Amino acid sequence: MVKSAPAVLWMLGVAGVALTLTAEVLLRLCRGSTGRLREVLFFPCPAACVERLFAAGRSPCPCPLPHGVETSFSRLLSHLLSARVSVDVCMFAFAHPQLRRALLLLRGRGLAVRVLCDRDYVKVNGSQIGLLRKQGVCVRHDVSAVVHMHHKFAVLDGRTLLTGSLNWTTNAVQNNAENVLVTDEPALVRPYRREFQRLWDAADPDRKCPQQPGPEPPV
Amino acid sequence: MVKSAPAVLWMLGVAGVALTLTAEVLLRLCRGSTGRLREVLFFPCPAACVERLFAAGRSPCPCPLPHGVETSFSRLLSHLLSARVSVDVCMFAFAHPQLRRALLLLRGRGLAVRVLCDRDYVKVNGSQIGLLRKQGVCVRHDVSAVVHMHHKFAVLDGRTLLTGSLNWTTNAVQNNAENVLVTDEPALVRPYRREFQRLWDAADPDRKCPQQPGPEPPV
Repeated sequence: MVKSAPAVLWMLGVAGVALTLTAEVLLRLCRGSTGRLREVLFFPCPAACVERLFAAGRSPCPCPLPHGVETSFSRLLSHLLSARVSVDVCMFAFAHPQLRRALLLLRGRGLAVRVLCDRDYVKVNGSQIGLLRKQGVCVRHDVSAVVHMHHKFAVLDGRTLLTGSLNWTTNAVQNNAENVLVTDEPALVRPYRREFQRLWDAADPDRKCPQQPGPEPPV
Repeated sequence: MVKSAPAVLWMLGVAGVALTLTAEVLLRLCRGSTGRLREVLFFPCPAACVERLFAAGRSPCPCPLPHGVETSFSRLLSHLLSARVSVDVCMFAFAHPQLRRALLLLRGRGLAVRVLCDRDYVKVNGSQIGLLRKQGVCVRHDVSAVVHMHHKFAVLDGRTLLTGSLNWTTNAVQNNAENVLVTDEPALVRPYRREFQRLWDAADPDRKCPQQPGPEPPV
């Protein structure tokens, strides 16, 4: 008994070191394989069919575009369609029909979808904002005639950020040199989440329409 | 001796666990305090004097702008002026005189400064591109009449990225809702560094001017 107690303690000590080191190694491996999302997408990219992203498992699409090709746009769309709870979009120019379709699909799945856009872009030819609004997506535009809402970012589920130079237009996707940075690093996502909410509140239509004067209070 | 050997082993075991845990805690603390640069700047921001950033220690500036005020623009300028080796700027619209001044200052300090811009923006009223070129900064513009170079990013010393929606114009800084994300996360910086080099090579003036046909080779 006198002999076995130190032996047990020794084994416990060694096992402790081994366990701590193993945990650290596992943690590092885990960070490497399933750690922070850090991806950069560059444009322009060639047009390719994205039907598989909208309707996995259905019969092959007969459209003439290349199929089964992964492009920066299909990656962007994949990220967007991976949202499970909410999508907040803050976009100067929104004219891409497939991105509108994605937002409608997400809304149909029950997600909270909010779109904030520039006041002057709402009625531009090709703008998808009017259609989004008609189809029930919650849309606001900035109320200032001086300050332009020039952001191009989206926050998915409050924890994944897509941001860069890319307006959500077919022309930008297919013709311009653009970038979109994708990350779930909280220190980067948090400020965008806060800024979206601040701009959303500032664009509340109630702020635009001054309260109608009520009846005179009784004397 | 029989008693002390296991005791020593036990102490070694405990010390091992303690040391490993301490190292982990120190590593985490270190990461927190001097870890990755992650900052987001939002615009518009009020105009404020930035002379202190250009000439620290000189006599107070007599200009009428507010002094000693930190704004998103002064933060942006501070990051830019912190470069020590190289600055690669990929900017659709470059019309901010203070940002041109910063690049000239950096070039004067011996840094390698490269500016890549959109072909159509070079001669826009207010563009600083012509002045940069005249003052010796290495400037290229995209050679395609179809693809617009719409990026708004810069890479400092090959390891710090500034990217977002902000064009380098006074109007964008003072009037627009814009964002700039600042990071030195290698997994994010690396793709931008590569993309800059790719676009820079593609915008090589030699590619624009087809080789003059030489004399007929001797038969």
